[in-house]
This record gives sequence, structure tokens and C-alpha cells, in this order.
Amino acid sequence: MKTLRNYFPILTWGRHYDRQTLSDDLLAAVIVTIMLIPQSLAYALLAGLPPQAGLYASIAPIILYAVFGTSRALAVGPVAVVSLMTAAAIGAIAEQGSMGYGVAALTLAFLSGAILVLMGVLRLGFLANFLSHPVIAGFITASGILIAVSQTSHILGVSAGGHTLPEMVMALIGALPQTNPVTLIIGVAATGFLFWVRRGLKPLLRRAGLRPRAADIVTKAGPVLAVVASTLAVSLLDLQAQGVRVVGVVPQGLPPLTLPSLSPDLIGLLLVPALLISVIGFVESVSVAQTLAARRRQRIDPDQELIGLGAANLGAAFTGGMPVTGGFARSVVNFDAGAATAAAGAFTAIGLAIAALALTPLIHDLPIATLAATIIVAVLSLVDLGILRRAWAYSRTDFLAVAATILLTLTLGVEVGVSAGVLLSVALHLYKSSRPHVAEVGLVPGTQHFRNILRHAVQTDDAVLTLRIDESLYFANARFLEDHVADRVTPDCSLRHVVLMCSAVNEIDLSALESLEAIAHRLHTMGITLHLSEVKGPVMDRLKSTDFLAHLTGRVFLSQYEAWEALRGQGVIVRQPPPPAPVR
Amino acid sequence: MKTLRNYFPILTWGRHYDRQTLSDDLLAAVIVTIMLIPQSLAYALLAGLPPQAGLYASIAPIILYAVFGTSRALAVGPVAVVSLMTAAAIGAIAEQGSMGYGVAALTLAFLSGAILVLMGVLRLGFLANFLSHPVIAGFITASGILIAVSQTSHILGVSAGGHTLPEMVMALIGALPQTNPVTLIIGVAATGFLFWVRRGLKPLLRRAGLRPRAADIVTKAGPVLAVVASTLAVSLLDLQAQGVRVVGVVPQGLPPLTLPSLSPDLIGLLLVPALLISVIGFVESVSVAQTLAARRRQRIDPDQELIGLGAANLGAAFTGGMPVTGGFARSVVNFDAGAATAAAGAFTAIGLAIAALALTPLIHDLPIATLAATIIVAVLSLVDLGILRRAWAYSRTDFLAVAATILLTLTLGVEVGVSAGVLLSVALHLYKSSRPHVAEVGLVPGTQHFRNILRHAVQTDDAVLTLRIDESLYFANARFLEDHVADRVTPDCSLRHVVLMCSAVNEIDLSALESLEAIAHRLHTMGITLHLSEVKGPVMDRLKSTDFLAHLTGRVFLSQYEAWEALRGQGVIVRQPPPPAPVR
Repeated sequence: MKTLRNYFPILTWGRHYDRQTLSDDLLAAVIVTIMLIPQSLAYALLAGLPPQAGLYASIAPIILYAVFGTSRALAVGPVAVVSLMTAAAIGAIAEQGSMGYGVAALTLAFLSGAILVLMGVLRLGFLANFLSHPVIAGFITASGILIAVSQTSHILGVSAGGHTLPEMVMALIGALPQTNPVTLIIGVAATGFLFWVRRGLKPLLRRAGLRPRAADIVTKAGPVLAVVASTLAVSLLDLQAQGVRVVGVVPQGLPPLTLPSLSPDLIGLLLVPALLISVIGFVESVSVAQTLAARRRQRIDPDQELIGLGAANLGAAFTGGMPVTGGFARSVVNFDAGAATAAAGAFTAIGLAIAALALTPLIHDLPIATLAATIIVAVLSLVDLGILRRAWAYSRTDFLAVAATILLTLTLGVEVGVSAGVLLSVALHLYKSSRPHVAEVGLVPGTQHFRNILRHAVQTDDAVLTLRIDESLYFANARFLEDHVADRVTPDCSLRHVVLMCSAVNEIDLSALESLEAIAHRLHTMGITLHLSEVKGPVMDRLKSTDFLAHLTGRVFLSQYEAWEALRGQGVIVRQPPPPAPVR
Repeated sequence: MKTLRNYFPILTWGRHYDRQTLSDDLLAAVIVTIMLIPQSLAYALLAGLPPQAGLYASIAPIILYAVFGTSRALAVGPVAVVSLMTAAAIGAIAEQGSMGYGVAALTLAFLSGAILVLMGVLRLGFLANFLSHPVIAGFITASGILIAVSQTSHILGVSAGGHTLPEMVMALIGALPQTNPVTLIIGVAATGFLFWVRRGLKPLLRRAGLRPRAADIVTKAGPVLAVVASTLAVSLLDLQAQGVRVVGVVPQGLPPLTLPSLSPDLIGLLLVPALLISVIGFVESVSVAQTLAARRRQRIDPDQELIGLGAANLGAAFTGGMPVTGGFARSVVNFDAGAATAAAGAFTAIGLAIAALALTPLIHDLPIATLAATIIVAVLSLVDLGILRRAWAYSRTDFLAVAATILLTLTLGVEVGVSAGVLLSVALHLYKSSRPHVAEVGLVPGTQHFRNILRHAVQTDDAVLTLRIDESLYFANARFLEDHVADRVTPDCSLRHVVLMCSAVNEIDLSALESLEAIAHRLHTMGITLHLSEVKGPVMDRLKSTDFLAHLTGRVFLSQYEAWEALRGQGVIVRQPPPPAPVR
């Protein structure tokens, strides 16, 4: 049962809002605003959109999230991976810089907003769980590589397209001769500087006596220095004459009111990309929000988060923006800067609105190469090829999922990559659970514990076979159990009792029940009795609702030890009428 | 490692073949042959093929299965459900009775044969497990209804098509006025007689002093009586003049050598139906074979069965047959009649070959209505709507799978029905395992056992929360666990320790591991320590391969009781450096 307050989290913190919280929020807002200006421009560029789209996408969405979202610190706006997916989705159907391109971006934001709200209302947040961590890690790593490579062209001052690594690399190599030396100098300088800011600046500030949090924040503001410096350089030395591409004229004013196109063809083309963008954006955003919320013993409601992010995207769609989600970097800054409530986000929006109104002329001479540098430095921190090693060390199936996701994302694009990753990990999971671990167990001498005979020195009885099934029994492994039991039992003529130890069986579905009936029936025809032990409450309740227990020739023992005491060393069994053959 | 004998099971029993086995097999063969003649004709009719196709499909396939199959008693040939699927698949692309129709049937047999052999060689038998019992039961029931309704037109002596229940019923109603009275009389009489044979004859024979097995076999031969009687009636009373449709001229001779068409278009159209026919035929056949084998402590090898059935279908494809599989009725008769080895099948094939050579003129006057009657009586025994009640009583998800399969099979056809059933049951399973049962447990006083606090009166400690997770931890439920723990822990400020009891956790994949790290990290920021208890050997081995245990602020206890003893009533915990935030 959800109350009005569930749907409008703002009502929860709004009532206790005081002067102290206000000043905390204001400080955080100023810091985040400064950091977001270059970032927003850069991600718009990455998505292939005019720079102001990035600014607009950080205004209305932030306010809407502040109203509907449950995280106090999450900062919503354009993020690297989603921008890349936007570029991939729209680039396939419209010409960059064309009218249709911008409209397609709005439509994409609208669709993913609608999808997110729908998922939230239907409480389908759990669907995001089918993106396994290895798949996400692989996907983000591959995306980071794709983004870095795609931005290299701006560092070289050339134009080179492509949506997959081979395409991009070929295009880059082909364009090398047109490299613009001045642009290259700016680009390399900016990149180098930003890397140094990340690595070297913070320790320096600490030694200068700055408090850690302050040092952190100044470091995060590094891109602003690069932007200011390179912009000044361009305008003072008139480097545009040298062929350095700059942001150029950005319209001054508040976000315009825009309408996404609802043409069925366009929606048809963008629906799948929108779905993927929604789910991936949601997963990224929720994990950030959860981590930050936990630090202050706060909770976020994943299903409400869907509505918050959905509202943010709908807002972007109607205010000249692009698909957005909760970003990691900006949220952490917001949190570290002391944002106490979602109001901080609202103030950030105001700050960006002012920037859109007044500051756009100042960025006319901002070189594209600098923005590219900020993107490259940002995304390279996402690239984590170590996940391949870690996955390999942990389990082959996880490795397979990561490797496939990375490979397919790089070679066939983001959409194929992530979809294949999801399908593969589900398939691998089903395959594993379809052949469960079944251990033959015996009594550990001097205890009441039963352990795998292959792993421990244990007592067994020739007439009694005890199998511990380490998996819930359902249709995919029901027949496997039948085969396993038959293979083990058929050649062993001394057997009189088979005990299935069910301590790890969390469910027995109808297929598995019928397999158990078949096993009992076949064992009976061999003169062997089937028993169960340590059946869980919920499973037992379910078995009691059937006539399985009535037909079971053996018993159901509460503990395996009880079964052992009752059956060992016992002679031949009392024959009973066989249970009916299972209906197949 | 498979030996030559694995691939040619005939080598196993062939060496010990003696006079006694021979006479057993010969007797069984005679009985099965008599029973198969009308059945083969009938199922060919059901598949929309000329009657001889049914005979041919029971000759070469039986011999090939005898060589490659692992079951001693399985009788291979046309069966009701597969014949229906054949009709559905081919009816959609060729005109009944046309040249192309027969070729399509051969191609279908060829494709499903190839698919089965391929699955056998790649040991993909486990794929069949994804057909859950409820789906199979629902599918067979719905198919039985479709078959019975489709044959009603022959009882009425009218022609009415359709592949879904609504189509068929409308066609029947439309055709009612053309009902042929004489045909109707024959059809109703035959149906009534056959039902009586099933219900009333056996007790009669028993009272007449016949041994049960003999009575059984005579009963199974009932259709032959109906065939002989109605054929005589037609020829003596010249009922053809009354418009009674008969089998007519059936070419005399051994199965012809035929070639399936390999045109890419045709293969493209038939590939999916062939796949479904293969899997369903395999499942039906294996369950029969396993049940019969168990009675004599024999084993069948499912993967080798794939090869045996595949060879049988390839044989059918090249000898004017149709898709075949191991039939339930005929196999049971074969078994009851005492078939000792697969040689019985070979002798049956010889018997049918003689029939094809010499007896076809005798069935010229056999009324189609009689064959329809034998089909109706046979398939109605497959219809088991009780599965709906049983599934409902057992679990809603199983019920959903059955109901959907039956409904879709009846309304949209066999292929949609069975495919939807499989996808739905997989989806439901994933959904269930994505929100596992997590029980908060406490100590049962006076024991070392821990039980659900909601089900039992148990001792707990305000500072210690113990959660028993009743599911393997993998990507689909990893985040669920994070949310569950956070929801439970956040409001409870007296907590100092959280213990995850893992007795039912059979696997922890990389996603779940990272969720555990996230949980540990977030709990740590709340001043709560995370512990594990009763972790299984294989799972522990895997955890040891990571640095999770190094970062775990709490301990891993061998038994939950040990954890309880160590943690209860303990004061504040010793703080340790927090584990690094999980990479997401």
C-alpha cells in the first residue's frame, strides 16, 4: 500500500527543511553547477547533439527528479554511457546535426521516460536484475573504450564516424593525414592536464593543508580550469583561424518547450534502444543511489526511482534535452559537497538555467578538443578490463558472459552487446541449474552430520544410498535427477533404500514432483524403497497437498540422522502396492 | 568416453541372442503387427497422407531403431500427436493430397531426423528438459482434443478443415447438412464398439478365465475386429454406393525409395516445426522407454536415444514414410507381449512389410470412418483435463503454464501453443527465483536448530539478525537480497550483527558476490558487521578464490549455532577499515 508520500518523496523531507539544510544544499549546488557546465556540453557533443542540449537536459530533469526521486543525493543529467547509446540509436536513423536528429533525441528521451514510468507503476524494477554484474561491467568497459576512441577524432581535429570499434579505428586511420596540429596540441595538453589533476593535484592540495573533502571537490572542478584556459587561449590567439573547431554560437535563453515526434515509424525504430537505455540507466542510477543512501542510513525505493528517472526523461523530452539518468561522478560530488536534500538538485538546476541564460557567449571559443579531453579522461576511469581476470578466476560462466558482452559491444555495437550479454547469462544460468550438484553423503563418525563421501571419511551402508540434492527441483533438472538416480542404482543390486536429502531443495515444482513419483515407481519395481529427509516447511506443505506422500513406499524423515538410524543394517523391505505410473 | 557398443546397442544384446529370446520376440512381433496395421493407416490419415505412408513409416524406422536405440521394448512409428503436428506443419504450406504434400512430409521427417541425430551427437538431450511436465501434459491434452474434433468430420462423412479448435468447429457446423447417414452409422458403431472394448471387454475375458496379460493383448487387438467387421460390411452391402468413403486402392509392394526435397525455402518453412516435432517426439519416447526399461532393471541412454530416433526418422524420410517416434500404446503392448530385445521390432517390421506386399487389397473397402473411430478412441485416452485441477492445487505458476499451453494450442495451433508454454515456464521460473524466500530465523530453545521466527517459537537477540536465504544467489536475485537486507536493517538501530545462513545457497555467482560485498560495505557504514554461516564446501571454495573473505568485517561460521554462541549478547563491535565500495 503506497501513500501520497511514497509517490512524492519531496513531502517527506520538505516538511523538515531548515536554514542549516538550506545552506548545505546551496553550497553543494554551486559546486555541482560549476562541474556540470563543461560535462553537460561534453556529453551533448558525445551524443552528437548541439552543446545546449546537454545544459537543457540538466535543468528540468533535475527538478522533476527532486520531486519524484527517492535519493537525496543523486544528480540526474546526461551521462557518458547513455549518451553513447543515444548516439548509436539515433546515428543509425538520422543525419548528425540534421533537424530530425534533434527530434529523434527528444523522442528517445520521451520513450525511455514513458518506459521507466510504466515499469515503476507496474513495479517491474526487478527486470533490471537480469542485467548481471558481469554483463554490466563488461558493457560499461566496452562503452568506455568506444567513447574514448570516438572522441580521439576531436583531439586530432578530424571528423571520423563509426559506431563499432573496427569502424571507428579504420575511420581514424583514414583521417590521420587531415590532423590539425594546433587542435592536437590543445587536445593533448588538456588531456594531460586532466589526468594530472586526477592523479597529482589532490596530494598536492593535501600537502598545501587543504581538508580532504575540499581537495576532492577542487580536483573534481579541474575540467573547469581546462575549459577556461583553453577558451582564453583560443580567443586571445585567435586559434579559430588555425582551424581549431570551437563550440561556437550557443543560443542564449531558458530551455525551450519542445515536442518529441510520435510518428509510429520513428517510435518503432527507437523502442528497443529506448528500452535498453532505460534499463541500463536505471541500473547505473540505482546502484549509485543505494550506495550513497546507505552512508546516511537512508533508503531508496527502486520502483519509485523508476518513476523519478522516468519523470526526468519526460522532462528532458519536452525541454530540448536528451536521455538522462543518475550519474556516478556528479552524484558523488553532490554528496561530498554536503547536499542534504533533493533541493540541492533544484538549486543546481537554477544555477544551470542562469548559465544557459547568461554564460553561453563565454563558451563561444571553447575548443571541442577540450570537451573531448574531459570525456576521454572521464570514461577511461570506467574502463576496467580487470573484470575479465576476476571473472575468469571466479567462474567460467561469469567469464563467458563478460567476454561475450565486451567483444560483441566493441564489434557489433552497444545494443547487440548488452542484449546478447543478458540472453547469454540467462541461458548459462538455466544450463547450470539443469544439471545440479548431487552428492552421495555418509555419516561423519561421532557426529550427526552427513557429508559428501568424496570429500570426507564417512560411514555408509551397502543397503542404503543417501543423495543430497544441491538445487531446487524444477522442470529443467527433473529428468536429470531421474537419470542420475537410475544410473547410480541400476548396477547396485545390494541396495534396499534410497534417501533423498532435501536440505537444499527450496522448491519442488509439478514436473519435479512427477519425476519423484517416477523415481519412486521405478525404484519400487527394482525392490528399492525411496525415502526423503530434511524437507523444508514450505516444500512439505506443498507435498502434503498432493497424494505423493500417500504413494511413497518409504518415509519422510525430519533429519538425515533419523533416517540413518531407522534404515541402516535393516533387512529386506516390506513390499507394498506400487504407486501408479506417472502421467507424462 | 563412448565405445562402439554405445553407438550400436545391438552389439550388446545381439551376442546373447538364443532360441528362447527368439520365440519371445516372435510372439510379441505377431501381436504388435496385427495391432499396428490399422493404427499406421489411421495416423497416416490423421497426418493427411495416403494410408500406405503409415505402413512404410513403421518398417524401415523400426529396423533402424533396433540397431541404434537403447530401449529393448520401444516400438517406433507414427503416433497421434506427431501426426497432428505433421498435418499442422504441412497443411500450412501444401495442398492435401497434392504431390508437394507427400514430399513435404518426407522433408519434415528428414529434418527432424537430422536435428535428433545432431542433438544426440552434441549430447543436447538436456534441452528437452525445458519442456516442463505441465506444458507437455497441457499440450498432449489439447492435441488430443484437436485430433478428436478433426476426426469427427470423417465420422460424419463430410470434409471439414481447420488447424485450430474454432476453425474446426465452425467448419464442422457448416458441413453438418452434408452428413452421410450410412457413414455416420458405421462411425458411431465403430466408436461405440471400441469404447466398449476398452471398458467392458477386458473384465468379460477375465471372467471367461483368460489370463490378465492375454486379456490385455486381445483388448488391444480390438481395433482389428472393428476394421475387419466394417470392411466386410462395406464390401458385402456395397456401401460405397451409399457414399461411404473407403481407403481405396493402396499400392502393393515394399516401401519405395524416396528422396526428401532439400529446397532452401521448404527447409526454411519446416525447420521450426521439425524442431518442435523432434523435441516433443523425443520427450514422449524417452519417458515411455525409461518407464519400461526400469521394470527390467535396464537402462536407456537419452543421448543415444536421440540418435536412435533420428536414424528412424531419416529412414522414414527415404522410404516414403512420415515423422515417427516411440509410441506409448504400441510399446506397452510390445513389452507386455514379452518382447525381450529390439529384434522383436525387426520382426514386426517384417510382418508389416508382408502386409504392405500382400494385404493391401484386403483393406480397399476399409471405411475411413472406422479409422477415424480408432483414432478418436485412442486420443481421448490422452485427454486429461484433470491436470488443470492438479496444477492449480499444487502451484499457481504450474497452473498458469498448463492453462496457457492448453488455451494457446487450441486457439492458435500446436506450434504456438508448445513454444509459448516453454517460454512461459522459463519466465515464471526466473521470476520466482528472482525473489527468493528469505526467512528470519531464531534458536529453537533446547536444541541447536534454527527455525523461521514466523513459524516457530524461537530465541532471538536484538543485536543479532539471522536471515536464512532459501535460494542460490545469482544475478537475478542479487539486488533483491540487497534491498531485503537494507529494508530490514535500516530502521533497526539496535542491530550490531547480521548473519546470512547459507545452508540452502548452492551457488554464489559473481553478481551475488558483488552484492554481498555491497551489503557488507553498506552494513559497515551503519556500524553493523556481516557474518556468514553454514556455507557449503563448493561455495566456500569459490569464495576463498576471491578477496571477499579478506574484506568481510565479520566471520564465516561452520554452523549457525556456533554463530549464535559467538555473537549473542555481545556489545559494540570492533571497527575495521571499511571494504572498498563494490565496482558496479
